[in-house]
Amino acid sequence: MKNNRQWRLRQHPTPDEIIGPEHFELVDADIPEIGADEFLVRTLVLGTSPAQRGYVDPRKQDLVQVGEIMRGRGIGVVEQSNHPDFQVGDWVNASMGWQEWSVQRLDRGLVQSMDVLSIQKVDNTIRPSALLLGTLGSAAFAALYGLEDIGEISAGKTVVVSAAAGGVGSVACQIAKAHDCRVVGIAGGPDKCRWIVNTVGCDSAIDYKNENVAAALDRDCPEGIDLFFDNVGGEILDLTLERLAPGARVVVCGYISTQYLPERSPGPSNYTRLLEKRARMEGFVVWDNVRRYPEFYARLRDWYDAGTLRAVEEVSDGIETAPDSLRSLFTGGNTGIRLIRVSPDP
Amino acid sequence: MKNNRQWRLRQHPTPDEIIGPEHFELVDADIPEIGADEFLVRTLVLGTSPAQRGYVDPRKQDLVQVGEIMRGRGIGVVEQSNHPDFQVGDWVNASMGWQEWSVQRLDRGLVQSMDVLSIQKVDNTIRPSALLLGTLGSAAFAALYGLEDIGEISAGKTVVVSAAAGGVGSVACQIAKAHDCRVVGIAGGPDKCRWIVNTVGCDSAIDYKNENVAAALDRDCPEGIDLFFDNVGGEILDLTLERLAPGARVVVCGYISTQYLPERSPGPSNYTRLLEKRARMEGFVVWDNVRRYPEFYARLRDWYDAGTLRAVEEVSDGIETAPDSLRSLFTGGNTGIRLIRVSPDP
Repeated sequence: MKNNRQWRLRQHPTPDEIIGPEHFELVDADIPEIGADEFLVRTLVLGTSPAQRGYVDPRKQDLVQVGEIMRGRGIGVVEQSNHPDFQVGDWVNASMGWQEWSVQRLDRGLVQSMDVLSIQKVDNTIRPSALLLGTLGSAAFAALYGLEDIGEISAGKTVVVSAAAGGVGSVACQIAKAHDCRVVGIAGGPDKCRWIVNTVGCDSAIDYKNENVAAALDRDCPEGIDLFFDNVGGEILDLTLERLAPGARVVVCGYISTQYLPERSPGPSNYTRLLEKRARMEGFVVWDNVRRYPEFYARLRDWYDAGTLRAVEEVSDGIETAPDSLRSLFTGGNTGIRLIRVSPDP
Repeated sequence: MKNNRQWRLRQHPTPDEIIGPEHFELVDADIPEIGADEFLVRTLVLGTSPAQRGYVDPRKQDLVQVGEIMRGRGIGVVEQSNHPDFQVGDWVNASMGWQEWSVQRLDRGLVQSMDVLSIQKVDNTIRPSALLLGTLGSAAFAALYGLEDIGEISAGKTVVVSAAAGGVGSVACQIAKAHDCRVVGIAGGPDKCRWIVNTVGCDSAIDYKNENVAAALDRDCPEGIDLFFDNVGGEILDLTLERLAPGARVVVCGYISTQYLPERSPGPSNYTRLLEKRARMEGFVVWDNVRRYPEFYARLRDWYDAGTLRAVEEVSDGIETAPDSLRSLFTGGNTGIRLIRVSPDP
């Protein structure tokens, strides 16, 4: 009985192509059977991440091959188990791929990064499960770690967040507000700009598609930028570097604007302001701190329960929407954290 | 009696001109007379600094005007004094300008930066005085502070220094060796490369004028670069960013390679490696730490007295050599710390 739909890779996108449905094929497969120490997981919700573009980039290592199931993390519920640590009804955050059912085991070899192969048991009392990949998920952990540990955020600072309507950005803005900072969000288009002010809570928004970003930064950051949380890179990074306050911090969380450009895309010529402003630019990878996830989760959940953090998931319905959801990360089409609902929460 | 020779600005160099003798005029003036609370200083030795290019750049503020004495710091001896804190025979590090005699006072207004107008009394027991602007001077303070406080240097690291035959660089290499690091210096030409290995003590040298720097970095830093102390910027910065080790530090001390380029010169496109390598790039200005100069001096003098630090001054003779000495900073003509001997030490 074919009742496990799967998205398999049809072809690798070329380096300058935006990823989308044309690169995948939806196939019907059997629900797999579990062996010793394995357990069967029903996918509840799948995440999307710019990193997934790298999994199908032929220039990268550890590639998803044509014909293989597209790689991706999700939240799922254990429906059958031969593993003593996982009971039916437990929820896990795991790499389940773009499919409705998956077999998981803890000891499969070739653990190349926490990202791809780790399995964490997660809180199965919260609803909807989408929160665990969204406002209380790893994008939020990145926002929290990036702002606090790398950016050394403190009250009263002027914080600028690029891609502020995106997954990490929309949580970063809220966390910066929770730290009593003045928060300037940069997003594309009037709808997103309204959303980051009205829903996310930014003090002001800059519409990079319709405004002169330099002039808007001058207007919104008259004393300079103390902390720039950057998801974008490119020209916006250069414009913010030009306006750093003394002792500023630039947190390099991503650089989605340059991911399609040739290898030698232009760098930020204003990096020289790091010297003049005694400033620091630093990158991080949140997976390095996987042991701190329970701590991150507890803090975010407290903020969420207190109403300080608002949910920012945007959930599309059905596994058939997965390629379009991923595509939207690269076309400016998403607001908040884009997720795919695959099956109902128990 | 005209016995105070002075270099005055004849014309501002255009933004793309290298500074040199054609921009200055050597004039004979009187030895000035001192008033209340003033003291007269005979210049012993003058320093050179890339920052001096900025003092005559019409795009910058706080400019030396045509006809004015060229600005610059030096070491001098007090020959007459109406100030209770400065006795005849004291030595000072002060902004005396390119002249043989100057009047100094502590309370002149318009103190815009420690660099330009501060006066420090310095050790008058050491000979030659040139050490106080060289191996035991502010370039050395920058090397020490940049490596230790910004770069968080520790034993066993692979440290790369650009402009390793220059003023800051040649001391930075020695301090990195004092920290038991493996030190790779980058310099231009076989003579400088021999000098940074044989005299400065680098473990290896890369001749950026005659070698493929990328291949040489791969050869000399097979495990990646833990700390890059950058005085240069430009392409070398990009090549080192490409080769950072996890958790690396990039210390932005200067960017002499781009000082002549138009405002929008290319930035380091490989800044994205900061994310992948969890690395940090940070700038600093040593003048911010002027209160720590006595501590820096004591530590450097200890190393010097122990033979761990070797003198790296290159001293030209006579105030008439000042414009050529400054020019050499921008033409790759200098080795070590370029100074101008103006009059004999007492």
